[in-house]
Amino acid sequence: MFTTMVTPRFGNMDVLGHINNTVLAAWFEEARNPFFRIFAPKRSFTDGTFNLIMAHTDYDFLKELMFGSDVEIRTHVSRIGSKSFTVLHEAWQKDNLCCRGHAVLVHYDFNKKETTPLPEDKKASLAEHLRQE
Amino acid sequence: MFTTMVTPRFGNMDVLGHINNTVLAAWFEEARNPFFRIFAPKRSFTDGTFNLIMAHTDYDFLKELMFGSDVEIRTHVSRIGSKSFTVLHEAWQKDNLCCRGHAVLVHYDFNKKETTPLPEDKKASLAEHLRQE
Amino acid sequence: MFTTMVTPRFGNMDVLGHINNTVLAAWFEEARNPFFRIFAPKRSFTDGTFNLIMAHTDYDFLKELMFGSDVEIRTHVSRIGSKSFTVLHEAWQKDNLCCRGHAVLVHYDFNKKETTPLPEDKKASLAEHLRQE
Amino acid sequence: MFTTMVTPRFGNMDVLGHINNTVLAAWFEEARNPFFRIFAPKRSFTDGTFNLIMAHTDYDFLKELMFGSDVEIRTHVSRIGSKSFTVLHEAWQKDNLCCRGHAVLVHYDFNKKETTPLPEDKKASLAEHLRQE
Repeated sequence: MFTTMVTPRFGNMDVLGHINNTVLAAWFEEARNPFFRIFAPKRSFTDGTFNLIMAHTDYDFLKELMFGSDVEIRTHVSRIGSKSFTVLHEAWQKDNLCCRGHAVLVHYDFNKKETTPLPEDKKASLAEHLRQE
Repeated sequence: MFTTMVTPRFGNMDVLGHINNTVLAAWFEEARNPFFRIFAPKRSFTDGTFNLIMAHTDYDFLKELMFGSDVEIRTHVSRIGSKSFTVLHEAWQKDNLCCRGHAVLVHYDFNKKETTPLPEDKKASLAEHLRQE
Repeated sequence: MFTTMVTPRFGNMDVLGHINNTVLAAWFEEARNPFFRIFAPKRSFTDGTFNLIMAHTDYDFLKELMFGSDVEIRTHVSRIGSKSFTVLHEAWQKDNLCCRGHAVLVHYDFNKKETTPLPEDKKASLAEHLRQE
Repeated sequence: MFTTMVTPRFGNMDVLGHINNTVLAAWFEEARNPFFRIFAPKRSFTDGTFNLIMAHTDYDFLKELMFGSDVEIRTHVSRIGSKSFTVLHEAWQKDNLCCRGHAVLVHYDFNKKETTPLPEDKKASLAEHLRQE
């Protein structure tokens, strides 16, 4: 499991005083930083060695998130396929699970514009964080 | 159907030159402005008369969205339930369907903290835009 | 003068019911799209031909911006220097000037990591939109 | 001095591989969270007791900010006036001062729609963090 702490900003609140739903997309992206360490160890995104593309995200909003307390994002790998994998994110605030969502990332050759198999070493790195749903 | 035109910003591109996935959350929110006209005709969000809360969103990223061309968001109501409804969004750029997603909005009494039935007049307004999947 | 219309999103409102100050940074960036047409006519940002970098922005918040009405961003070139130029943005809503700000863009060689003179043809394109403060 | 650590997100990078200028507006807002503890100790923003409005922000971009390393935002009060105060923010990454900016916050009565004097106890709280430029 990866753990990421995020601090709500004043402007993340909407007029109802809750964290706006669109903010979770940014927070969960931040929680995927460890995957960039696996798939872009040198932080080289434009030399053709980075091969991930986002195929799907979803968000279930279970309880209002509020301004004033940090939020813990808990992240697992929930599925490892041959050419893609799924990440599960949970946003916890004050012991409440407030949002739960997924991201499906596809291994993709940007030059050939086609999906490619996940290398075995990357699969092994992902497997360390696997917790099937 | 509701149609919303959005213009990608330079900063919406990520380092790969594509529109970042988190941007779609904002664009689809903008495409739901017409629903605020139905559920908050006076734009009064804090006087207890606004009763919608977001329960779920999802996004299927079908094709890269690029900077340099406007994007048309086409929005339908795809389901009308007793206490909630589902909105379907499609992001089109240069005749390509690039992203498709849903939002599930729940009719909710923020004071009582419980779901409440959708009023018949709101259901009728939603039904004008219904296109079942 | 360049004119850009933007539509406030629900999530752009903060808890006080006003458009949050950070939103203007995004809106004014969108209003600079015409400058990308001058400095990146082929939308090629990674081939070494794009030579602009942001050096400064400022924002004076003169009147609250609200959700529910479109906002017109009026943009001029207010200064053309030898290696940089200044853009002036105004955000108007319902005949009120609500925010006024500047962006200073520097002509910059990203490979040599040094400022470079603005080419004469670019200066001429900028001069078409010049309105000194 | 207040210190806030922020972690760049993948989507905060623009196509040039730098953190986009608009992101600093959000980071500096997060760095102002301690001021909400002074001016909204109960996190009550809609009961008429919160009296701050943003009048001005500016940003000097001194060096590119990159993805892959946390950023430390150092925040001081740089001016305390009778009805407003100025905050100075600095964004540091790997011992480099990369962005420097200000925010001017005005004490404002949202009901009367006029500026009001800063209370002495608030001035005293601000003075603990004063470092004149």
